[in-house]
Amino acid sequence: MNGAQALLKTLADAGIEVCFTNPGTSEMHFVAALDSEPRMRAVLALFEGVATGAADGYARMADKPAATLLHLGCGLGNGLANLHNARKGKVPVVNIVGDHATYHTQYDAQLQSDIETVARNVSPGFVRTAQSTAALCQDAADAIAAARGLPGQVATLVLPADVSWGEGGQPCPPPTLPAPAAASDEAVQALAQTLMQAIRSSEKTIVLLGGQALREGALRSAARIAAHSGVQLLAEVFPTRMERGAGLPAVERVAYLAELAGVQPAASLDKLAAALGASATQPPMAPAQRPGRPRGPLTAPKVCKAVGHLLPENAILIDEAITSGLMLGVMTAGCPRHDLITLTGGAIGQGLPNAVGAAIACPDRPVIALIGDGTAMYTIQALWSMARENLHVVSVIFNNASYSVLNVELERVGAEQAGPKAKSQLDLKGPVLNFAQLAQGMGVHAVRASTAEDFCQALEYALAHPGPHLIEALVPESLAGPKRKVLPWLLRALPSLPPQVARALKRKIAP
Amino acid sequence: MNGAQALLKTLADAGIEVCFTNPGTSEMHFVAALDSEPRMRAVLALFEGVATGAADGYARMADKPAATLLHLGCGLGNGLANLHNARKGKVPVVNIVGDHATYHTQYDAQLQSDIETVARNVSPGFVRTAQSTAALCQDAADAIAAARGLPGQVATLVLPADVSWGEGGQPCPPPTLPAPAAASDEAVQALAQTLMQAIRSSEKTIVLLGGQALREGALRSAARIAAHSGVQLLAEVFPTRMERGAGLPAVERVAYLAELAGVQPAASLDKLAAALGASATQPPMAPAQRPGRPRGPLTAPKVCKAVGHLLPENAILIDEAITSGLMLGVMTAGCPRHDLITLTGGAIGQGLPNAVGAAIACPDRPVIALIGDGTAMYTIQALWSMARENLHVVSVIFNNASYSVLNVELERVGAEQAGPKAKSQLDLKGPVLNFAQLAQGMGVHAVRASTAEDFCQALEYALAHPGPHLIEALVPESLAGPKRKVLPWLLRALPSLPPQVARALKRKIAP
Repeated sequence: MNGAQALLKTLADAGIEVCFTNPGTSEMHFVAALDSEPRMRAVLALFEGVATGAADGYARMADKPAATLLHLGCGLGNGLANLHNARKGKVPVVNIVGDHATYHTQYDAQLQSDIETVARNVSPGFVRTAQSTAALCQDAADAIAAARGLPGQVATLVLPADVSWGEGGQPCPPPTLPAPAAASDEAVQALAQTLMQAIRSSEKTIVLLGGQALREGALRSAARIAAHSGVQLLAEVFPTRMERGAGLPAVERVAYLAELAGVQPAASLDKLAAALGASATQPPMAPAQRPGRPRGPLTAPKVCKAVGHLLPENAILIDEAITSGLMLGVMTAGCPRHDLITLTGGAIGQGLPNAVGAAIACPDRPVIALIGDGTAMYTIQALWSMARENLHVVSVIFNNASYSVLNVELERVGAEQAGPKAKSQLDLKGPVLNFAQLAQGMGVHAVRASTAEDFCQALEYALAHPGPHLIEALVPESLAGPKRKVLPWLLRALPSLPPQVARALKRKIAP
Repeated sequence: MNGAQALLKTLADAGIEVCFTNPGTSEMHFVAALDSEPRMRAVLALFEGVATGAADGYARMADKPAATLLHLGCGLGNGLANLHNARKGKVPVVNIVGDHATYHTQYDAQLQSDIETVARNVSPGFVRTAQSTAALCQDAADAIAAARGLPGQVATLVLPADVSWGEGGQPCPPPTLPAPAAASDEAVQALAQTLMQAIRSSEKTIVLLGGQALREGALRSAARIAAHSGVQLLAEVFPTRMERGAGLPAVERVAYLAELAGVQPAASLDKLAAALGASATQPPMAPAQRPGRPRGPLTAPKVCKAVGHLLPENAILIDEAITSGLMLGVMTAGCPRHDLITLTGGAIGQGLPNAVGAAIACPDRPVIALIGDGTAMYTIQALWSMARENLHVVSVIFNNASYSVLNVELERVGAEQAGPKAKSQLDLKGPVLNFAQLAQGMGVHAVRASTAEDFCQALEYALAHPGPHLIEALVPESLAGPKRKVLPWLLRALPSLPPQVARALKRKIAP
């Protein structure tokens, strides 16, 4: 058994069943070994940022890591932005980065670079270069253990070609993961006291939830605490994954992050509820309600309204629409239960790859990804993987032909009188992108919609026909022309926006 | 004058006239300042790898650096692969990488990462974070000096937002660059003796040329030396830029790199020619000759033949066709004078961005970029920049629906009996990409050709109509089906291939 074969068995034994790949020459033994491990599914991406973003989306939904297979330092570099998002979201990912044979390093080959240094940016907790075929699988087990610890993280294992092809690979049993425990009784008592003290001494007390505390169990306990003690629950502004919808506690997102690190939030909050005497409290849940069916010329808020009108139960909603998705939270709050995935690290180009991974993790659930036009172009190659794997993903691209959020930022920095060169850096006109054609070129069924009626019809069709679809929503720039119409929506959305954006919007709305 | 305005003036004063941008929030002051410097052209890219690859291509043709404008560590990461290619090609590039405000770093903001560490991989010779608005332009001058030294290199200046927006920017005069001198008389004499000794003691002496020694002046001197002394000239296998064609010395490429570092090769070789008494020698030059017009079903060699048949004088030829471009060198050797740009660092996704930069550097010269299908998808967003800037670039994509070079490599590693999962990792079928649609979706005129007649007609049309064009050449996998027909061409091309690929091909051809 060579190193690659043993590695694949070790990964599969530890429950890693999917590898998102963009291999090159150094990874050919790993590729050749794929057929020796029937439990491993290999999903090809045409660009490394798709592979890493798919691994991120997969882990968010599967609650366990996928592997990536990347080609040397340059391949890792191409995948860096989405690994950054995974790191910020505390998402487990196991990177396998091929390298030249160990004895080849001295020649400074064409693709030679310092892989470990690049990797440390996104996987500071675990970067290791395998030194021998015999020890490779222990390295892999250590990487898996690092990735799956609490909180999750990105772990990077560099795999030199000779370690991969060498004979004498020894598969390793899965690492023992510490069972996520609830917080200790002492910690819970202390937290309960702190909370009661805050309630007694202040007019309004807010409990901030983040990370795993945004899943159902933890949310229910937190809602009991909130209802019993009269505190308000708020969620971090960019949740890695948030369970929400009718029948679940409704928690608004704010521009602040706080979370319970290193313990099991659901059990801990349950204990905290008990300590506060809130175990039997019946908190209010989000009522079932949907917005009506939008009509007339399409706008970004109408797209969000249509999604709220039609979102099926159990959907996975991916929000990377930046300015155009402002209304999404409000419009879907009362929809049937669903999961929400957001841009955790701010490195745009996450949404389409996340959709690939989420759809592979949950093949029976529809994925709806709302993506800005500027954003979509960073990892547009994800559409091909959706077609290749026949994933049930509806990609909605808001085509407003501009980097809207940067126009907001340009004003925010005081450059209100921006010249033509500056403005041209933020518009995506000349030529306006045709995302439907781009999708068709990669084998994805696609339509363009410029009325709400067309959009609704396209979304209904896409949801009724499993497989990949793209709907290009032709909308006016959300913050430009129809400012007045958007105004009421904006005002409602302001509390859930990052404070910088909210301030900039306020300045635009009421100068 | 704020920091950004002073920086732009400093760059322009030093002759940096183009900035390839993909800005984010932290770079808004730089963007806002663009209109204060009329000498600076800003070229927007939709993905950072396009911006860095365009800066690389620009510098290869303009013989001076462009700047890039990138957004934090993640933006730099997205641009890393093409900066690697620039580093390996010793190409000058000045990266401006925006960062959070200096006082913001302590908060570990959403996009925070260690930019300098990432940058050191591609610009080991110069990475600096600007610390104050007052000192910013001296930092920039130092970066420019580092980039433009001999040999050229990538220099990275990290620009925190507050340094950029701060008042009190002080433009800096252009750095004094040491004039590239010829090698010293002593060095030339020593080299002459070494050469004469080699000629006397061996049957065949080869002089390897690389880097700047592949430009006209150096080539002519080298050819005089070769003709006078009876040595053979060979060129590095992946030239950064090579001047070739009818009327210039014909130098074949081999799988070895050697170059004169730190001196001016043309002057040095001229001195060497004088030292050897070869100054008046009339070496043979490449004869003017073109292949005939190809006919019948299109194949990869026929595409190369068509390019050789039609290549206009003064064209810039970019070769990133990997397996499909094997015949390109042979087919264009006797074409009118042109420049050849190749994949210097092995990180695929260089060709289309290089074409953007080369076309901006040389607006009066047609650019023809031959790109493999797998390769094209890494930086396909470059097509949009070609349309936006209305560049005269003809992108030829060989669509054989596979990573052919990896199929060669898979066999090379001994995995001849690869299973279906392994093979599926190297094929790009299901769905087959439609590059014409992708190009049209980005505003580029595009056609598909499956016969040599159609291809020639499309190429003639594209060359006659300045502006961006894409021709998708539908070809069978070059090394699969029509092996017999390809055989004679392959045998002729073998000497100019990397030895690993040549060996693998030989094994395929004569197992």
